[in-house]
Amino acid sequence: MAKAAIMGYGTVGSGVYEIIRMNADKLAASCGEEIELKYILDIRDFSDHPEKELFTKDVNDIINDPGISVVAEVMGGLHPAYEFTRDLLLAGKSVVTSNKELVATYGSELLEIARETGVNYLFEASVGGGIPVLRPLARCLAANNIKKIAGILNGTTNYILYQMITNDKSFASALKQAQANGYAERNPAADIEGHDACRKIAILASLAAGKSIDYTRISTEGITDITLEDVKHAEQLDSVIKLIGYAEFLENGRVYAHVAPMMINKHSMLAGVDDVFNAVLVNGDAVGDVMFYGPGAGKLPTASAVVADIIDAVEHYGKTRNIGWVKADEDLTADRDEKKFRYFVRADKDADIAVFGKVEEFKSLGDENVFMTGYMTAGEMDAVRSAVKTAIRILD
Amino acid sequence: MAKAAIMGYGTVGSGVYEIIRMNADKLAASCGEEIELKYILDIRDFSDHPEKELFTKDVNDIINDPGISVVAEVMGGLHPAYEFTRDLLLAGKSVVTSNKELVATYGSELLEIARETGVNYLFEASVGGGIPVLRPLARCLAANNIKKIAGILNGTTNYILYQMITNDKSFASALKQAQANGYAERNPAADIEGHDACRKIAILASLAAGKSIDYTRISTEGITDITLEDVKHAEQLDSVIKLIGYAEFLENGRVYAHVAPMMINKHSMLAGVDDVFNAVLVNGDAVGDVMFYGPGAGKLPTASAVVADIIDAVEHYGKTRNIGWVKADEDLTADRDEKKFRYFVRADKDADIAVFGKVEEFKSLGDENVFMTGYMTAGEMDAVRSAVKTAIRILD
Repeated sequence: MAKAAIMGYGTVGSGVYEIIRMNADKLAASCGEEIELKYILDIRDFSDHPEKELFTKDVNDIINDPGISVVAEVMGGLHPAYEFTRDLLLAGKSVVTSNKELVATYGSELLEIARETGVNYLFEASVGGGIPVLRPLARCLAANNIKKIAGILNGTTNYILYQMITNDKSFASALKQAQANGYAERNPAADIEGHDACRKIAILASLAAGKSIDYTRISTEGITDITLEDVKHAEQLDSVIKLIGYAEFLENGRVYAHVAPMMINKHSMLAGVDDVFNAVLVNGDAVGDVMFYGPGAGKLPTASAVVADIIDAVEHYGKTRNIGWVKADEDLTADRDEKKFRYFVRADKDADIAVFGKVEEFKSLGDENVFMTGYMTAGEMDAVRSAVKTAIRILD
Repeated sequence: MAKAAIMGYGTVGSGVYEIIRMNADKLAASCGEEIELKYILDIRDFSDHPEKELFTKDVNDIINDPGISVVAEVMGGLHPAYEFTRDLLLAGKSVVTSNKELVATYGSELLEIARETGVNYLFEASVGGGIPVLRPLARCLAANNIKKIAGILNGTTNYILYQMITNDKSFASALKQAQANGYAERNPAADIEGHDACRKIAILASLAAGKSIDYTRISTEGITDITLEDVKHAEQLDSVIKLIGYAEFLENGRVYAHVAPMMINKHSMLAGVDDVFNAVLVNGDAVGDVMFYGPGAGKLPTASAVVADIIDAVEHYGKTRNIGWVKADEDLTADRDEKKFRYFVRADKDADIAVFGKVEEFKSLGDENVFMTGYMTAGEMDAVRSAVKTAIRILD
C-alpha cells in the first residue's frame, strides 16, 4: 500500500482524483500495490465533497506524515508550489507535477534535491499533456544521441492556426472562438505569444541534453503577426503554418532553440496535427524520426500523465530514475546565428531578391513577391528585413 | 559495469553492436554504469571482424558466465531462440528481443520464467521497430484502461499501398518495387498476407489486456485482394486503404481483434503514415487518442529499441518490470460477430441494397454500385457476400 497526496484540487487535480478512484484496480495492477489517497491540499472549501475528510489546508500535514511516499503537485504557479515541492523532496517524498513553469524555472534544483534524498521528481504532464513523451524520450530513446526536436506544444495556438487554415478565419476571430470554446484564457498572452511553448521546449531540450537549458535564453515569437494572407500563401506552397518549439543539438555541444511560427510541408506528420492536439517529433541518431501525438491539455488526459508518474514513483520508490538533467555550468544556448533556415518571404515588389540566396517557388502576386529563400541566419534576415512583410522559417 | 551479450549477428544484431560502440557514453549515462559487450553468438564465421574475439558459436559460454546480466536475442525464428532464451532466463539473465514470432508464441511462458527468476524479458523492438510503443503503452498509459488499438504495423504492406495510392501502381507492380528496394522478401507471404501484423497486434493486445491473446485466433486478411480500383474509390471518399492491426477491449472482458485492410479518412493521423513507416494509435479511457509514429523496421531503428531494452534491463536488474502479461486461463478472443463495422462496398448493380443497413455515399459507377454500409457484423456481411465485389471495413 503506497500512500499519496494531491496538492491543488483544480482541473488537473480533480482529474487525478477521478482516475485514482475510477481505475483503482488498474493502478494497483500496474504498481504491484494499491495506492491510498490520503490527503488533498487546497486552500478552498470542499466541505461538500463526498470525501471531504481527505482535504487539508496545511501542507505540513503531508510533509510531516512519514507514510506518504508520493505527492502530485498540480497547483500551478511558482509560489508556493516551489517551496512545497522542495520541502516534500527534502522530506523524502517523490513529487510528480504538471507544472511546466516550475519545472522550467526550478527543475535543476528540484531534480538535484530528489537525487540527494533518493526520490523522484517527475513531470511527464508538463509537456504534451497526456502524450507520453518525456519518459519515452529519456528512456526508450536512451540509445540515441538526440539531434533535433520539433513540437507543436501549445493547443491554443494550434487551434487558432487550424481555424485560420481550415475555416478562413482571421487571427482575431479565431482567437475569439478559442476563448468562447474555453481553449484560450481571457488573457491569452502566455499562449499566443509563445511563452507556454517556450517553457515546454526548454524542458524537452534540457531532458535530451541532460543539462539545463535556460528558457529565458530561448528566442520566442508567437503567432500574433500571422495573417490569413500568410496562411493562404502557405497553402499555395502545399504547406501549413504551425507554432513550433524547435531545438537542435549542435556538434559543438550547444543547443539551438526557438519558438516561432514555421512553414511545414503537408507531407510532414506534424502538418496533420489539427485542432487542439499536440505532437512532438524527435530525431535520434539511431532511430531517425519518431513522433508522439495526442491531447496536449485537458483534465483527464493531463491527469493520465500525472497518475502514470505516480505509478512510476511508487515502482521506483527509493531509487532516483534517470529522467532529468543537471544544472549546466555555463549557458548552453547557441547564438541564433549558429543555425540557418530557409524562410518563406513576402517582399515588396522592388526589393532586391539577390540578398535572399537561392530563391525557390517565386511568385509575383499583386504588389508583392512571394518566395522561399536559401538558407539564412536570423541575422542575415534582419539585415534585409526592411523590404520584407513576412518572413517565416521553413521546417525541413 | 554491466556485462552483455548479443545472440545473432544479422542485420539487427550488427546494429546493436554498432550502437553499443557508437554511443557508449550515452548508454553509460543512461544506465548509470558502463555496458561491456562480452560475447556475440553466431554460428557463422566472423574471423575477419575487428572484434573477432567477442564471437562464440556456443551459447553455453553465455549461459554459464555468471557475469553476464543481459542478453539481446536478435537471431529470429522460434528455435533455437526459444530454448536459448528459456535457459538464459532460468540462469538469471535478462533477455531483450526483437523476435515477434517468439514473443507471440512463447511470450507467456518466457515472461513467467522471468518473474520466477526475478529478471526481465523485454521486447520493445518486436512491435513498431524503433518506435517507443510497448513501454509507453504499459507504463506511461498505466493509469488508463485501454479501449482500442489500431496500428499500421507492417512497413512492407504500407509501402505497397502507398505506391498504389500515390503512384497509381497495381498491387503486383508495387510489390515488385518493394522487393527491388529491399522492403519485401523474395517470398513476401508473411507480410502481404498479414501474418507479421497479426503477431504484432497479438503482442499489443496481450500487453494492454495483461493476459495472453492467442495470435492464431486472430482473424487475419492481407492486402493481396486490394486492387487499384479499390484505392481510387477510397480516394473519392476522401479516404485511404491501410493494413490495420486492430484490437478492441470489450466490456465483457473479451478482446476483439483482426488484421485487415481498412478504409481510413484522410483526416485521421493514421492516414498520413506513408512509405514504410509504422504507427500505433491507442485509445485509453483517461487520455483519449494518442499515437506513436516512426520507422517500423531497419537496422539502426530496430537496434535502438533493443538497446533501450538493454538499458532498462540493466537499470532494473533483479526486479521484474510490469511490462508483460500472464497466460489467460481461457481464450479471451471475442467472436468476430461481437463487433460491428461499417464497410466500404463495391456491389453488382442489381444487388439488393436494403441488406446493407443505412447506406451512405452511394455512387453508381459503370456496372457497379459503390457505397458505405451501416454497421454490420462479419457474419452479416458474409451472408450477402455473393453480390459483393469488395468489402473493406471502415475505421471510425
